[in-house]
Amino acid sequence: MQLIADNLQITNPMIAEAVERRDPRPIADLVRRCVAAGASAIDINPGPLKKNPREKMQFLVETVQSATTKPILLDTVNPDAIEAGLSSCRGTAIINGFSLEPDKRDRILPLAKAFDADIIGYLLDSESRVPSDETGCFTIALELLSEMEKAGVKKKRLIIDPVIAPLIWENGIAHNRAVLSLIRNLSDVIGFPVRTVAGISNLTSGPGPKEKKRLAEAAFLPMLAAAGLDMALLNVFHKETVRISRACDALIRQEIFTWAGL
Amino acid sequence: MQLIADNLQITNPMIAEAVERRDPRPIADLVRRCVAAGASAIDINPGPLKKNPREKMQFLVETVQSATTKPILLDTVNPDAIEAGLSSCRGTAIINGFSLEPDKRDRILPLAKAFDADIIGYLLDSESRVPSDETGCFTIALELLSEMEKAGVKKKRLIIDPVIAPLIWENGIAHNRAVLSLIRNLSDVIGFPVRTVAGISNLTSGPGPKEKKRLAEAAFLPMLAAAGLDMALLNVFHKETVRISRACDALIRQEIFTWAGL
Repeated sequence: MQLIADNLQITNPMIAEAVERRDPRPIADLVRRCVAAGASAIDINPGPLKKNPREKMQFLVETVQSATTKPILLDTVNPDAIEAGLSSCRGTAIINGFSLEPDKRDRILPLAKAFDADIIGYLLDSESRVPSDETGCFTIALELLSEMEKAGVKKKRLIIDPVIAPLIWENGIAHNRAVLSLIRNLSDVIGFPVRTVAGISNLTSGPGPKEKKRLAEAAFLPMLAAAGLDMALLNVFHKETVRISRACDALIRQEIFTWAGL
Repeated sequence: MQLIADNLQITNPMIAEAVERRDPRPIADLVRRCVAAGASAIDINPGPLKKNPREKMQFLVETVQSATTKPILLDTVNPDAIEAGLSSCRGTAIINGFSLEPDKRDRILPLAKAFDADIIGYLLDSESRVPSDETGCFTIALELLSEMEKAGVKKKRLIIDPVIAPLIWENGIAHNRAVLSLIRNLSDVIGFPVRTVAGISNLTSGPGPKEKKRLAEAAFLPMLAAAGLDMALLNVFHKETVRISRACDALIRQEIFTWAGL
């Protein structure tokens, strides 16, 4: 399972200030620490970027690239910012992401064609709601593929995010059980081996004791790994979660076991 | 997931000595500590009991019962010892277990009928070997049921142990992946909701660094829980593994989430 760092967020005041001052150092330093902690890709989450979206995203992409050659995820609802990010990215960029919401479908999805880039598709309906059951999720997955075809984007570019629900939601546990089953069966249902990604931090968002949040992550991640999840978006500074993900790889992906693999 | 303590083993010199001296105190103390650590049943593993099997098993069962009313598993290949254990057990006893090996099938299985007791059936062939693939496992599961029917034991008495392989076995990882799939599909294949049990300590048996062994347990247990495992036989003094199993219950079994449930 590849680990994507979700640490580069504008909600982190240190990052917000660095972006305002166009100071690359704290950002590049954070990125280097994420890579050292095990990140195989960096998610750039700059918020909606109402002011100077193009210039700010370009600054962020260039800053991340000054610290690593690993893939970059452009995680914003602002299509102008995504376009600027794709233009300034020298390595692999992944658009994060689109859904059936008309704005995203019409303005973000076409960028995947224009730049021949991977794009994350969220299993959310056209009003950005989580489907009520697994069948609803499969229906939306097929609709995402249909929209990709209409937009001329190759289907292999799709990475599906089944959207983990916060545990404290009324139906959060049931939804997350459905997510496991969905990840397991998705490729069979849609007819090709589609990649999947999930945001682990969603699981424990909202109030709750920190130690128990980490425990819930550590218990859910192996369930996702066994279901076949390809990429996990998470705080890579949660050491225990990263260690568990390595152990999952050893148990699920390797052919030959060695203790050194854990 | 119910946790069965595998701590009461004759390979523990303290237990061996207590059995030799018929001293109940160290054993009763161990059992109390297992229950306090989260055990919902106690596995009594006295070895093959070549000398005085009946008297020793009776002593063990009475000693365990002096400390707890929780279910007891009679974990030996010695049918005389199992019979004595069943005779002296006032609460719930589970026979652990039988397989297609002629000795066990002919001498242990009939005790499940005689005492109307639950019995664990191992997915091993008639020479006590692990099947080479999942289909082989299903075939053996059906053969175990067929043997139960012949012996007049109700099928609901069966608890299947798919036999987790040590990771360091040549095909250990592949076998354990098959175990996950098997647990998920077993009830559908054999046509009724059969219970399952697995020995977690098997996973890491043999040489290896202790900390990584615990990590492998912590990663594999949630995979088993998500697959639907009902009972885990493990060292309940592995605190982290017990904590993870509680978190798994919260994520998989509960309908309403509370942080207090973790």
